[in-house]
Amino acid sequence: MSMYDMDLEKTIRKINSIDAKCVGLQFPEGLKTQATKIARIIEEETDAITIISGDPCFGACDVGDWKMKGSVDLIIHYGHTPLPLKYEIPTLFIEAYSKINIKKDLEKSLEYLKNYSRIGLVTTTQHLHLLNEIKDYLEDNKKEVLLGSSTSTRKGQVLGCNFSSIKNLDVDIILFIGSGNFHPLGIKLFSNTPVLAIDPYNSEIKNMDEFTDRILRIRFARITKAQTAKKWGIIVSSKEGQYRMKLAKKIKKTLKEHNMESHIILLDNVTPDALLPYLELDAFIVSACPRIAIDDSQMYKKPLITPQELEIVLNKRQWENYQLDEIIFHERYK
Amino acid sequence: MSMYDMDLEKTIRKINSIDAKCVGLQFPEGLKTQATKIARIIEEETDAITIISGDPCFGACDVGDWKMKGSVDLIIHYGHTPLPLKYEIPTLFIEAYSKINIKKDLEKSLEYLKNYSRIGLVTTTQHLHLLNEIKDYLEDNKKEVLLGSSTSTRKGQVLGCNFSSIKNLDVDIILFIGSGNFHPLGIKLFSNTPVLAIDPYNSEIKNMDEFTDRILRIRFARITKAQTAKKWGIIVSSKEGQYRMKLAKKIKKTLKEHNMESHIILLDNVTPDALLPYLELDAFIVSACPRIAIDDSQMYKKPLITPQELEIVLNKRQWENYQLDEIIFHERYK
Repeated sequence: MSMYDMDLEKTIRKINSIDAKCVGLQFPEGLKTQATKIARIIEEETDAITIISGDPCFGACDVGDWKMKGSVDLIIHYGHTPLPLKYEIPTLFIEAYSKINIKKDLEKSLEYLKNYSRIGLVTTTQHLHLLNEIKDYLEDNKKEVLLGSSTSTRKGQVLGCNFSSIKNLDVDIILFIGSGNFHPLGIKLFSNTPVLAIDPYNSEIKNMDEFTDRILRIRFARITKAQTAKKWGIIVSSKEGQYRMKLAKKIKKTLKEHNMESHIILLDNVTPDALLPYLELDAFIVSACPRIAIDDSQMYKKPLITPQELEIVLNKRQWENYQLDEIIFHERYK
Repeated sequence: MSMYDMDLEKTIRKINSIDAKCVGLQFPEGLKTQATKIARIIEEETDAITIISGDPCFGACDVGDWKMKGSVDLIIHYGHTPLPLKYEIPTLFIEAYSKINIKKDLEKSLEYLKNYSRIGLVTTTQHLHLLNEIKDYLEDNKKEVLLGSSTSTRKGQVLGCNFSSIKNLDVDIILFIGSGNFHPLGIKLFSNTPVLAIDPYNSEIKNMDEFTDRILRIRFARITKAQTAKKWGIIVSSKEGQYRMKLAKKIKKTLKEHNMESHIILLDNVTPDALLPYLELDAFIVSACPRIAIDDSQMYKKPLITPQELEIVLNKRQWENYQLDEIIFHERYK
């Protein structure tokens, strides 16, 4: 049915156990094409009707609870692990584990790992179920394997906005399992150790040094351009887990102290189109998802920078201490 | 500063009178480029800081109150008149009247109106302030002028989703002042009288018969295509004034009685991209803004139809009784 394990039995058990009449289904972009199939099965197997949330969803920072409040008595949120956030409706998180086999890639990776003995092992939600197997395999090959943990993530897990689990790992190299460049980039920048990334979807294995250098050069260009800005936009997301209004107000105050004008712009989804009406502004600071400024940089007409990069612009941080932005979820309700 | 009167004095008086510390500003798409200028003036003239809502906004159906809850103590909503909806935060509506002069167009229109004596006069929010002047002018030219009213709109006003004010007007012709084709199309279809439209932005005066015929032919094509559908999407908007979940559930039940499958999809903004994951479905019924199915029809890969058009598909309504969809706001909380 899918490349992912959607754990329908668990879903159906949960719906029946609380006798839910109306169930909201929320999927990240990559799983949305499964929505109608899953809705059909739920409606066949239970007495509930389903309501599919069609809005973009990129993480558990964005559970559709307040949009679905009053409409449903249970939300099934697919593809992410829960965050320490307040959800207004009972929410069942189904991790949607990838069914992809990584055995061959793992064998290949031994060659890359031959000069390292202490290995930090880390992945994203969809491969969490493989961690024990991978750990065993590496240990069988005489490696010492460490998995970090944090309050916002599972053991051995990183999020695009939170790298707590790998920060104090005392290892020689970190092995990342998953697709895309952003997560291993974050791991590289937060850990300052070598990072080897296995992308099981295209059997690619790579060291992250070159990509990291390239991104840092782009960031340097954005920061340099932002240094000429006089009028700023400060972007805040209304998504529960991305909402950092206090930070935005603090930034506005700081900019005022530097005799610069700024405007706070509240958005649900941050897109290039959404910022077009504000091109009078010279640059934007993104307090929403930390990935936006880094991943989508080239799509925007004006420089988008992170709060930490603003510190460099304002000479409050040395370039040598460059840091990615992170969301510390337990600060949300302080 | 702008083609529109943004009534900054009223805004500043209101902010000072309730001693607001943080003010949310919400603009429809066409006025968003004014946002930073207005924010700047408010912050200079009052002690409040402003937060600009950057999300798309198409009407008072969509006041950003629940997204701004906890962030601001007053919302200034520009460009629309209030609707009979519950708003969670005190909201000041600033109509943003157009400064455009319509005197010459009005003179020209007399030629078109020469065979009619009882004229219904109607417009959209941005020209409401001209109605008395236009009425006087027409009366000076020996016309009888009638303005309709309703619980959802001001006297002589129509919305894209509500035409109550013109429904029972006993007139020979309706004169519409405003831009775009949708409002005069709706007036034509709901009133069944001739409609003359003056677009003051490009000095165009036209009878709506031809456009109405063209739209009806397109609707006929969509309805015909939808008659082959077996699997349906039912779109509900989470916007306060567009939320018609009860209607959606009723439609789902009706379709089930006709042995057809349907899935309710809840969206904040309905866009062609947002429906791409559900192309397994054959057609969509839109319970959100009534303009979506009509105005944006060509942008979608599958037919989008209104609840009234579904009645034609299901042989519950005759094509001769074709009706546009409307949102009856006082049904929202029933």
